[in-house]
Amino acid sequence: MKKGVLTVVSGFSGAGKGTVMSLLLERYQNYALSVSATTREPREGEIDGQHYFFKTAKEFQEMIRNGEFLEYAKYVENDYGTPRAYVEKMLDEGRDVILEIELQGAMMVRQQFPDAVLIFITPPSIDVLKKRLVGRGTESMEIIQARLDRAVEESKGIENYDYILVNDRLDDCVTTLHGIIQGVHYRMSRNLSFVEEIQREAKRI
Amino acid sequence: MKKGVLTVVSGFSGAGKGTVMSLLLERYQNYALSVSATTREPREGEIDGQHYFFKTAKEFQEMIRNGEFLEYAKYVENDYGTPRAYVEKMLDEGRDVILEIELQGAMMVRQQFPDAVLIFITPPSIDVLKKRLVGRGTESMEIIQARLDRAVEESKGIENYDYILVNDRLDDCVTTLHGIIQGVHYRMSRNLSFVEEIQREAKRI
Repeated sequence: MKKGVLTVVSGFSGAGKGTVMSLLLERYQNYALSVSATTREPREGEIDGQHYFFKTAKEFQEMIRNGEFLEYAKYVENDYGTPRAYVEKMLDEGRDVILEIELQGAMMVRQQFPDAVLIFITPPSIDVLKKRLVGRGTESMEIIQARLDRAVEESKGIENYDYILVNDRLDDCVTTLHGIIQGVHYRMSRNLSFVEEIQREAKRI
Repeated sequence: MKKGVLTVVSGFSGAGKGTVMSLLLERYQNYALSVSATTREPREGEIDGQHYFFKTAKEFQEMIRNGEFLEYAKYVENDYGTPRAYVEKMLDEGRDVILEIELQGAMMVRQQFPDAVLIFITPPSIDVLKKRLVGRGTESMEIIQARLDRAVEESKGIENYDYILVNDRLDDCVTTLHGIIQGVHYRMSRNLSFVEEIQREAKRI
């Protein structure tokens, strides 16, 4: 069984990451989306173990101490983290695992999985981002401004990613994302034992 | 206009590279296959400027002296080389250029185009390669043996490529090849000016 590819997807809030992920998972069967642990309160309709693993602050700190997180970070006053065990199990089963996390966590993942693929998803321009956020019409100007402020912060770390994807046309974006991740399976570094086998066989000709 | 991606495709004679290339070019419109210069005699039906640029030994040496080749190499008693001008023109026009060359040339290309993608295509096993070569039924055992000997030689350099593709199912192989090459367009290193633009815009929010 070939090991799965670990992919980190980050991007501006409003870049349409969620929609991209949904369509990717719907269209292709080889992906697994990691479920995060969090100390924040469940929102209406959120199911423990499906949307998040809901934890108390004490439980979360204990998980950190036990090294149970692949990465974790604090946003506003809540903790978020990716439980390592689930990710490793999925990878071992050959599933391509996707983590939807931010820069700080992405850097922690890279340290532990040097061949993870880090992808940043962006709208075509900041103007488009603004229009999308305002256009939703569901949030106050205050929240929109907070999101834009966060986008300014996030934009500073884009160079740290391996790939940048523009979510201009959803369908193309999903196809490209899939192509990039699938391509990783064919990297030389992941296939050295197959190459050795071919070379051994060739010697016996 | 975004610059095209330069891809080197190598692989065992008998791996089905030719068929893979034909289908890739037929299916997608963004590719250009480089035309090599050679000192060998044209075969029946080969057209100058389409299959090869046919050159005399003297012309070929002069092209080398003038730095007109991106890479060149000798096989048996003939010279083969990739004229640089055509490749650069196509890349500038945004076409993804494919060079079907061998290891020695591939290494020359990498030195000059560090972000070129080097892909090695192999059959699933050397046994399959043998069967394919024998199965063609068009060549003498001597030629088959010569090809296998060459495969042994070629197999020694596989680790120098960026990707290894198994041509097991033609259709999948072409799809994967296309995905790998298209993914290169989204590498961070190729998109730094776009990132700067986003960052500049973000600052102005």
